Amino acid sequence: MRWGRVEFEGSDYFGTIAGEELLVHEGDMFAAGRATGRRIALSSAKWLIPCRPSKMIALWNNFHASAAKNGWAIPAEPLYFCKTPNSFSAHEAEVRAPAHYDGRVVYEGELGVVIGANQSIFGYCCVNDMTALDLIGKDPAFPQWVRAKSFDGFGAFGPVIAQGLDPMSLTVTTLVNERERQNYPISDAIFTPAQLVSLISREITLEPGDVIACGTSLGVLPMRPGSIVDVAIAGIGSLRTHYR
Amino acid sequence: MRWGRVEFEGSDYFGTIAGEELLVHEGDMFAAGRATGRRIALSSAKWLIPCRPSKMIALWNNFHASAAKNGWAIPAEPLYFCKTPNSFSAHEAEVRAPAHYDGRVVYEGELGVVIGANQSIFGYCCVNDMTALDLIGKDPAFPQWVRAKSFDGFGAFGPVIAQGLDPMSLTVTTLVNERERQNYPISDAIFTPAQLVSLISREITLEPGDVIACGTSLGVLPMRPGSIVDVAIAGIGSLRTHYR
Repeated sequence: MRWGRVEFEGSDYFGTIAGEELLVHEGDMFAAGRATGRRIALSSAKWLIPCRPSKMIALWNNFHASAAKNGWAIPAEPLYFCKTPNSFSAHEAEVRAPAHYDGRVVYEGELGVVIGANQSIFGYCCVNDMTALDLIGKDPAFPQWVRAKSFDGFGAFGPVIAQGLDPMSLTVTTLVNERERQNYPISDAIFTPAQLVSLISREITLEPGDVIACGTSLGVLPMRPGSIVDVAIAGIGSLRTHYR
Repeated sequence: MRWGRVEFEGSDYFGTIAGEELLVHEGDMFAAGRATGRRIALSSAKWLIPCRPSKMIALWNNFHASAAKNGWAIPAEPLYFCKTPNSFSAHEAEVRAPAHYDGRVVYEGELGVVIGANQSIFGYCCVNDMTALDLIGKDPAFPQWVRAKSFDGFGAFGPVIAQGLDPMSLTVTTLVNERERQNYPISDAIFTPAQLVSLISREITLEPGDVIACGTSLGVLPMRPGSIVDVAIAGIGSLRTHYR
């Protein structure tokens, strides 16, 4: 089952995806909702973020391959920052950095874990954890993770939330202008999705719709204005961002 | 004008404070709302957080006195992390750290700037930016600001949002079990509230109800279970947290 949200003729709808249509539901997505019988052609609708997270928690240094390449120690606990809600953007969104920022902006293709009722895992999405890379270390006294990660639109996720997947079997690929730049298995994660939910929720209550971005691995590179970035995970779909 | 939110007989209400009563309003607080004529005695209601921020941005190293004492350089730009919404707690809330965390938890009394329409300043509140201090530097590779600041309840703000104040004339005092531990003027800030809103909103859109916690100054100390912490700012009121 894959859940999505769209805007159509000025209103928002959510529901399940069947082929090229949204089967509109009403009620609460995280309590499954109820099908209304209405169908909307995806080709005539605009994609929205598939849910409205109260928070997006995003991991640093969560893959063995990137830890090894960068010489980072394997962390004893999940290490994370957050991306604020103004950063959320949907499939096919156009995203640009503020005019005064002239540093590098990188994509980071990631698996997103979407929380359901009772701090369970509801499903999975693709995440493009865009980052104003030169801000993080700009001030030597204080690494600016939240700022560098939270520019408007820098937290793309979607296109849908997919259920019924084994996350450990998934592979994240990122394509820039259709050229593959990232391709890594979730099985290389230091903390699995289930471990992340378990460890984080001991301290920070996770609400339905919250997203944990599981961190990225090798192949992160700067985007240039005009780049089209696709984060694709088989079983979920492909999340496209137009970087302007 | 001071705005508050309360729970009374199972429902939530917002409105202006007049003496010991809430003058109930309907509509949008940030568009002033409309008085309904109903009054609720504050003594019979439970305080809620005065608005529902989509994000709380909190400053590090924003007062000259604490920078001087700690040997921190004066930052060229605002340095901030964020506190996730699960951390928000109201006046008179009971807050406790997770059982497995046995490190220090400190209070930080702060001025909170509440955003209104069009990224303007709507008003001001008190903030107790509670912090699991021993987490920040626990992993030498990654300072854990968001985690240390975002335990459930660790972001107290309120009791109300006050309008019509000159923030540069305000003084923040923090009392622990009625003993004064912090007393510092906002005029000592490195970045004023107006500068914070201006600089942050260039990159990160601020929504009505969002809170910028302006950072703390000298006098931060650990709390012990049983501590009662009051963050008081004349013209706003006193925000009480019961630390368990």
